[in-house]
Amino acid sequence: MLTLGIDPGLATTGYGLVADTNGHLQAVDYGYIDTQPDLPLPERLLIIFRDVKSLLEKYSPNAMSIEQLFFCKNTRTALQVGQARGVIIAAAAQLGCPVYEYTPLQVKQSIAGYGKADKKQVQQMVRLILKLKEVPKPDDVADALAIAVNHIQISKWHKLLETQK
Amino acid sequence: MLTLGIDPGLATTGYGLVADTNGHLQAVDYGYIDTQPDLPLPERLLIIFRDVKSLLEKYSPNAMSIEQLFFCKNTRTALQVGQARGVIIAAAAQLGCPVYEYTPLQVKQSIAGYGKADKKQVQQMVRLILKLKEVPKPDDVADALAIAVNHIQISKWHKLLETQK
Repeated sequence: MLTLGIDPGLATTGYGLVADTNGHLQAVDYGYIDTQPDLPLPERLLIIFRDVKSLLEKYSPNAMSIEQLFFCKNTRTALQVGQARGVIIAAAAQLGCPVYEYTPLQVKQSIAGYGKADKKQVQQMVRLILKLKEVPKPDDVADALAIAVNHIQISKWHKLLETQK
Repeated sequence: MLTLGIDPGLATTGYGLVADTNGHLQAVDYGYIDTQPDLPLPERLLIIFRDVKSLLEKYSPNAMSIEQLFFCKNTRTALQVGQARGVIIAAAAQLGCPVYEYTPLQVKQSIAGYGKADKKQVQQMVRLILKLKEVPKPDDVADALAIAVNHIQISKWHKLLETQK
């Protein structure tokens, strides 16, 4: 199973592809899509849309995992993140890749084991799970890998629960 | 000159196509794209993306005119509107249609003549300018026509200013 984790943003969208081979998790690819602030908004959104589509076409992941945001610093930030998030989810829908949304609390709980874990603890856990030498930079990339790992963990538990019914 | 005005929303996106033939403004087409709240988010965004692309392909407008939002009731609304707005602007960018953004204040000033005009006054002015029997319903459609008319007015003033330089 291959999962594409996404941390959406207009300036920087982090992505992380994690493969689950019989319980062995591996980071297949990770990085970020950045768009320059001096580009017009339509061009920036089109770059994000095309680059996400390219990733989906290249790897054909089984799922996209993306953070479910309810709150942002302010409405301006929310509008900007929303725009980037919209084109990313539309790209997945266009290519028939199922999209799973998780709250930051779910990510913390599934990876660090409890909801009050801080960002750094979650990143270190992801680094250990994926056997990476360092936490990838910037944070957007580490967070994208975290949300991919989160989806894999949660899917496993769901399967486990189903088999025990 | 043909302008596609858009009032973006996840549940309802209003659109209005206004033609300017030597200063005679005419509403060529108007209506709305609605997505059911019980559909998954990716499907809703894909419907908006596809329907806006269809409009752009059918009419090949010279410009898309869309409201520039800075503030929303709350961040949750901002995220939702942002997602819809993102896919609409990406659709325009993909088809090479230039996108113009205007603040609500600019729309009120260019159509009703002053920034403190209320929504109803702006809608009635648009109805008179386009010689429509009634203000189109819902508000999203009337607002989409308003932002299209606004773009035409502002473009004219810009041309006028340029010829007088």
